[in-house]
Amino acid sequence: MAGGLARAAVVGTGLIGGSVLLRLRDAGLDVAGWDPDPVARRQIRDRGVDAPDTVEEAVTGRDVVFLCGPLPTLPTTLARVAAVTDEACVLTDVGSVKAEVSTAATVQGLGHRFVPGHPMAGADRAGAGAASPDLLDGAAWVLCPGPTGLGAFRRLAMLLVDVFHARVVPMSAPEHDGAAALASHVPHVLAGALAGTVHRSALRDAVLTLAAGSFSDGTRVAGGPPERTANMLLGNRDRVLAELDALGAFLDELTEALRGGDAGALADRFAEGRDVRSTLRARTFTAHRREFPAAADHAGELAYLRELGTAGGHLSEVRETAGAVTYTGHLPATPPLG
Amino acid sequence: MAGGLARAAVVGTGLIGGSVLLRLRDAGLDVAGWDPDPVARRQIRDRGVDAPDTVEEAVTGRDVVFLCGPLPTLPTTLARVAAVTDEACVLTDVGSVKAEVSTAATVQGLGHRFVPGHPMAGADRAGAGAASPDLLDGAAWVLCPGPTGLGAFRRLAMLLVDVFHARVVPMSAPEHDGAAALASHVPHVLAGALAGTVHRSALRDAVLTLAAGSFSDGTRVAGGPPERTANMLLGNRDRVLAELDALGAFLDELTEALRGGDAGALADRFAEGRDVRSTLRARTFTAHRREFPAAADHAGELAYLRELGTAGGHLSEVRETAGAVTYTGHLPATPPLG
Repeated sequence: MAGGLARAAVVGTGLIGGSVLLRLRDAGLDVAGWDPDPVARRQIRDRGVDAPDTVEEAVTGRDVVFLCGPLPTLPTTLARVAAVTDEACVLTDVGSVKAEVSTAATVQGLGHRFVPGHPMAGADRAGAGAASPDLLDGAAWVLCPGPTGLGAFRRLAMLLVDVFHARVVPMSAPEHDGAAALASHVPHVLAGALAGTVHRSALRDAVLTLAAGSFSDGTRVAGGPPERTANMLLGNRDRVLAELDALGAFLDELTEALRGGDAGALADRFAEGRDVRSTLRARTFTAHRREFPAAADHAGELAYLRELGTAGGHLSEVRETAGAVTYTGHLPATPPLG
Repeated sequence: MAGGLARAAVVGTGLIGGSVLLRLRDAGLDVAGWDPDPVARRQIRDRGVDAPDTVEEAVTGRDVVFLCGPLPTLPTTLARVAAVTDEACVLTDVGSVKAEVSTAATVQGLGHRFVPGHPMAGADRAGAGAASPDLLDGAAWVLCPGPTGLGAFRRLAMLLVDVFHARVVPMSAPEHDGAAALASHVPHVLAGALAGTVHRSALRDAVLTLAAGSFSDGTRVAGGPPERTANMLLGNRDRVLAELDALGAFLDELTEALRGGDAGALADRFAEGRDVRSTLRARTFTAHRREFPAAADHAGELAYLRELGTAGGHLSEVRETAGAVTYTGHLPATPPLG
């Protein structure tokens, strides 16, 4: 198996964890899952996957462990899992905020084998019942390569590319959290605010009858578990507040143009947004290869990886031979607008 | 053909008008289209539909005409089309705001044969090239039955149900505009503000790489033509500004809960939004029939229709016999929350 990671465990088997587990199983890995909820463990067993009663039984002897529980539990779970796994066992998580768990790993002396991760996938549902081996297929999957060695990152990236066809996006934890604030956290706030405003409206029933594309699309993630969304926002509070300020300023410009009846100013603001949509829809990439010595000092490799993510790029392949590691990377072909 | 409307014309053959035209043609109606843009007329002819060079040629002798041009042009186009069509010819439009065109029709003495309309359909694209006979299949389609006779409304509703499988939502023009402010116009503002904020962000490229469900869904309509969105908002300015105020208040509550680190308050706000999503996803309806004398005073029928729309209901069938009109209506089965 890719990266030599043949035995895998998933801790926390909700929507994302369950989907990771099923995909790894379907790819032929030896897998086990664990969840604090006995009902969730039974659901896993019903789908033919081993689910011991303790987290220790589930993770002992594994080559890779995915931590997929709620965000606030991750530092504690990390310590518990690290204590009963080998030094060679790669640890990762799928949390939507990376700074806190990343710092916890460093404090716990796990920087060499814990690789913070975040697959970008829909979150309008929850629970193992909605889990699917295809949920993460082809997803952008952020990994945060750390300064204390790239071996774990390489092996995990290989697994994700092979099994999930992931577009691996290497980023530092702070950079991830900055980008995710706008790419995911603020959109969750807006979806919740829009749906909540309708909930309180006297016109609620008529509004729901008219709810087509824009409302239905714009509130989709408001269907997710409120506690999960709250944890996500609290875990990235300062950045989310800063981006909400930026959004508020844009919203004020739109509102003032509308109040003033200024069609030209309104259209100009919407044209800015359309540029982003056009880019998102028609993004093309140019591929390249980069090779680094396998055992050398990793500063150059780390710099390459982080610059790739910052520039909007991703990896589609990682190969390791006796003496070298080779990355196939992809960078946006069009120069950034503005 | 249903309602006796066998010869139809569409004026303005962009995304919505083109889709209406193709669907009517596929349903076997005798159709013609017209657009001020010669390129659009050629596109129609290329798809095998008659497209004369003048609007007068296109609409003369027709039983029903759909006005599908830009919102600000509708009053003028209405007058032009009315002048060359029979008194029996039903006129309707598909604009996203109903008050102005509705008033214009009354002023022009066309209240008995102009039925303001608004099919609720996606608007992230534009142009005849994106038109499809299936775009409006099964859509919620608002019609505003007026006080000056229900004959035109009945015939048009019959056509929409038969040809488009529409869920016809009867509403007064002001009620439509109030509900559409929250169901469509404010979501367009939010989508534009979110996409525009990313456009201006230094993290733009990284954000686009991470853009999965919530961002992609939440900005979809920001891909539409800026002028069309501006016209829509300006046509419903006061209501949109009022709902933006309500949304701003909700957003402030969320922001304050986040700033204060209050997980409980955050989750409570998001729970309000989730209620709306649950209702939207799991809405069930109970069907009923209502019969009215065909030629009687229409006050009771009009009251029934408007109450149906206000309550979140719709029509799935309209039948007219010698002496009576029968509606099959559907009302939400669950009592409104809150």
